[in-house]
Amino acid sequence: MASTTMQMLETYPAEIELDRRMLAEVIDALKDCAQTCTACADACLSEPVEELQNLTRCIRDNLDCAEICTTTASVLSRHTGYDANLTHAQVQSAIQATKTCGDSCDEHRDTHEHCRICAETCRSTEQALNGLLPHLEPSGKGAQRPGRAAPQQGR
Amino acid sequence: MASTTMQMLETYPAEIELDRRMLAEVIDALKDCAQTCTACADACLSEPVEELQNLTRCIRDNLDCAEICTTTASVLSRHTGYDANLTHAQVQSAIQATKTCGDSCDEHRDTHEHCRICAETCRSTEQALNGLLPHLEPSGKGAQRPGRAAPQQGR
Amino acid sequence: MASTTMQMLETYPAEIELDRRMLAEVIDALKDCAQTCTACADACLSEPVEELQNLTRCIRDNLDCAEICTTTASVLSRHTGYDANLTHAQVQSAIQATKTCGDSCDEHRDTHEHCRICAETCRSTEQALNGLLPHLEPSGKGAQRPGRAAPQQGR
Amino acid sequence: MASTTMQMLETYPAEIELDRRMLAEVIDALKDCAQTCTACADACLSEPVEELQNLTRCIRDNLDCAEICTTTASVLSRHTGYDANLTHAQVQSAIQATKTCGDSCDEHRDTHEHCRICAETCRSTEQALNGLLPHLEPSGKGAQRPGRAAPQQGR
Repeated sequence: MASTTMQMLETYPAEIELDRRMLAEVIDALKDCAQTCTACADACLSEPVEELQNLTRCIRDNLDCAEICTTTASVLSRHTGYDANLTHAQVQSAIQATKTCGDSCDEHRDTHEHCRICAETCRSTEQALNGLLPHLEPSGKGAQRPGRAAPQQGR
Repeated sequence: MASTTMQMLETYPAEIELDRRMLAEVIDALKDCAQTCTACADACLSEPVEELQNLTRCIRDNLDCAEICTTTASVLSRHTGYDANLTHAQVQSAIQATKTCGDSCDEHRDTHEHCRICAETCRSTEQALNGLLPHLEPSGKGAQRPGRAAPQQGR
Repeated sequence: MASTTMQMLETYPAEIELDRRMLAEVIDALKDCAQTCTACADACLSEPVEELQNLTRCIRDNLDCAEICTTTASVLSRHTGYDANLTHAQVQSAIQATKTCGDSCDEHRDTHEHCRICAETCRSTEQALNGLLPHLEPSGKGAQRPGRAAPQQGR
Repeated sequence: MASTTMQMLETYPAEIELDRRMLAEVIDALKDCAQTCTACADACLSEPVEELQNLTRCIRDNLDCAEICTTTASVLSRHTGYDANLTHAQVQSAIQATKTCGDSCDEHRDTHEHCRICAETCRSTEQALNGLLPHLEPSGKGAQRPGRAAPQQGR
């Protein structure tokens, strides 16, 4: 099933200050990363006990990363009254979460195939987020909005 | 970017009581539907005010459907200590949410392209969920588990 | 810090078809249950390995219950274009999730204080949800709305 | 209903590198702020159309802030394999989200009581988060952990 992310961006009834293709790729990467991390946490829980004891930190990082990626995908899916500071901060958190979780899963890549796949998904999501970040800078072309909430567009 | 949902299911280290291909399709449909509903709510908010006043119920249904689909995708991504009753109840809620939101968006499909896409995404997700539901019945082949939590597997 | 749930319900600018006091209590119970389940899953992960192996199902139920309670609290916090069918289905899922998780945690109440607290929180949340459920029946006083999305109020 | 956040922290079976009382207060503030923002977005949607057109940015900020606060509360509820960098980044995002949303709601405080309550909830949550932030610094007393995920505790 093909993602409808790009279709939704194309039918957005107002301007979007970011490249829509890049945005769609980042949103899709975040959705996939969230699901992969949720699944990896659960796969870790199903490992035999002698493995499980080494995976508790990995499970925690998976759970954090899954929730942070889901939230970041939502934030990036909203363009009405776009606020560069808020978006920037949440994307930075997602970069850190995918890095932390990618590192954790990478330690187990040779033992657990689900950790290898999850580590690679985290790495590619981190890369996509890093590509987006400069375009979100309040001083960059991505946004001219000051830190304080700007007046409503409708005014 | 291809979804890694199926790869994660293939590397799950224990048994899964459901057909993995069907499960992957439902999870991917739910992820896509959640994003589409989040985007549709925001697109509605960007419509001119004479449209906006007719879209408040649609926005609310979009927000509910987005959250319910995300949660249902997570529940379906966890197989350790699988509980058919819990999964069944959450899938039923997702069927209702995609139906309600599909109906709401469908009323605006001729006026708003984002509502048309969202209505169709809700419909196909509802259909995928309805295909999965019989396999989740506590009395069906999908689960022999009683309503009360079964003892831990490790015992 | 006192919850502002009741204050927000009192300042809602339109009618709410449910008793606001009962609604506030259920929403607050769900929020508390979600946090307790998230914390219990993590506390389980910190137990010594000989305990951990018996807690994997409990962790999974905690994670499901946390997400379902959070989503249900959001659904119950939205009244614009209230849809009884959707709300009813999600509340039923939360009743099942708090029952399943309450059962799972209850098995460990003598060994783990965090499981005892979590079991009791799940039980009282389940009870609050069961008290609300009859008021959400499409045929009850809580809603006269049919299954299909009603036309927009603004029309 | 009293929150069980502090009880859960008291029964956590391992060390927590942060002051438990401060942590409980921040988690409870975040939960309350998330619910308030969800409710404020919905209250805005119920305003008459001449008001609604000025509230679209406020609704968007409410939705972002609600999701970010929920995710931050979850991250702060997990202590197993604590990672200061990840926690720090997500708390910074929550500080920005409560600031942005507080600013947006503050613009409508004289017209809409729900916006006034929400603005004040955002401000007090932002303050609580700012009080926690220094304790999360990787170089501070809150954490000596490097940016890269530390080896598993079980090793």
